[in-house]
Amino acid sequence: MSEPAHIRATYNDIHNIIKASSAKIAEFKPNMLIAIGGGGFFPARVLRTFLKDPSTKRNIPIQAIGLSLYESLPGTTAEQLGNEVIRTQWLGPEPGKTLLGRRALIVDEVDDSRKTLQYGNRDKLIARYALSELQKDVENELQAVPESERDALRTKFAIFVVHNKLKPKLGELPPDIPYFAGAEVEDLWLDYPWEAMDIEEHDRLAAEDKAKST
Amino acid sequence: MSEPAHIRATYNDIHNIIKASSAKIAEFKPNMLIAIGGGGFFPARVLRTFLKDPSTKRNIPIQAIGLSLYESLPGTTAEQLGNEVIRTQWLGPEPGKTLLGRRALIVDEVDDSRKTLQYGNRDKLIARYALSELQKDVENELQAVPESERDALRTKFAIFVVHNKLKPKLGELPPDIPYFAGAEVEDLWLDYPWEAMDIEEHDRLAAEDKAKST
Repeated sequence: MSEPAHIRATYNDIHNIIKASSAKIAEFKPNMLIAIGGGGFFPARVLRTFLKDPSTKRNIPIQAIGLSLYESLPGTTAEQLGNEVIRTQWLGPEPGKTLLGRRALIVDEVDDSRKTLQYGNRDKLIARYALSELQKDVENELQAVPESERDALRTKFAIFVVHNKLKPKLGELPPDIPYFAGAEVEDLWLDYPWEAMDIEEHDRLAAEDKAKST
Repeated sequence: MSEPAHIRATYNDIHNIIKASSAKIAEFKPNMLIAIGGGGFFPARVLRTFLKDPSTKRNIPIQAIGLSLYESLPGTTAEQLGNEVIRTQWLGPEPGKTLLGRRALIVDEVDDSRKTLQYGNRDKLIARYALSELQKDVENELQAVPESERDALRTKFAIFVVHNKLKPKLGELPPDIPYFAGAEVEDLWLDYPWEAMDIEEHDRLAAEDKAKST
């Protein structure tokens, strides 16, 4: 009998993946992090340790957002899905104003496929759906701005995920969106440490996996 | 020369403090977690692993909030401070409606004294200020509800902090607010793992500290 294929990431693994990614991410010069809850909370907080606002040299503010998708039937198009997003939490207090003129990095733990609930009842949603929702806010807010100023104020977005699963994605990213993946991984079940009921056992299994693969 | 007195917490230390606190917290029956950014993000995410919504048995939703305090002069009263809170992020999209009828647990990493910026430029704010801000929203929202229904809908709050520093606090908690502290610690500088530039060195020093204290 073969064991179910898991990838187990320890806290320190993730911490170090983020650290190693930070130099590359700094080239985008983000001055705002948008953490997708709940999986993006921890990565965003760690990333902030390794980035400073390029102009002020201060901490980069983190905003959190929450999205949920209605369960959808097989065959639902990406466009239909886009209409089924519920914002459980959003930028505040004024989303558009929070975004205009910013360089915003969207942060999540994994870029998997397209759906919430794919891991049972976890509230997982991929960053690319967050991106399109945020872009809607920016475009709405830009309507109140003279046309000649819009390009300068249009938010620059980028995406960072700790793990990118090597599998086909529903919905292509626009080519002008920088995309940073801390690690590219096979399409296996990812066990995150914050979900471990027994963190010592989790670490022990992770160490075993590492020993096997070397 | 004496070294500056630090308490170093590893990721697994914090994970296990939260795990050990969860049975006690479950007695409050929270059905909503409010994470104070950025220090409350990680604790809230871990706590959710050890709690389920008591009625639905599903994951408890996490909302994130951000607060900042204006720098204030020595001698500023707690009341004045209360007026100087800026909400950098808030419950959304409808704060009052998100809260009414809920049992909400406010989560942060440390209950220290009263101010942001006390650790340099970290955006730290203690849970008790978040509480009073949230209570304002609840009372505002209750004005739209018939008086006879208000008591039933008034949000029940509780607070959980991973570490409670044993020192005088500015501002007493109302006596009806359950308060959970994962660990009581001396008034020393707390080094959190998510702020470690070198996580292996952080862990090594934490292990040394533990060896010394036993």
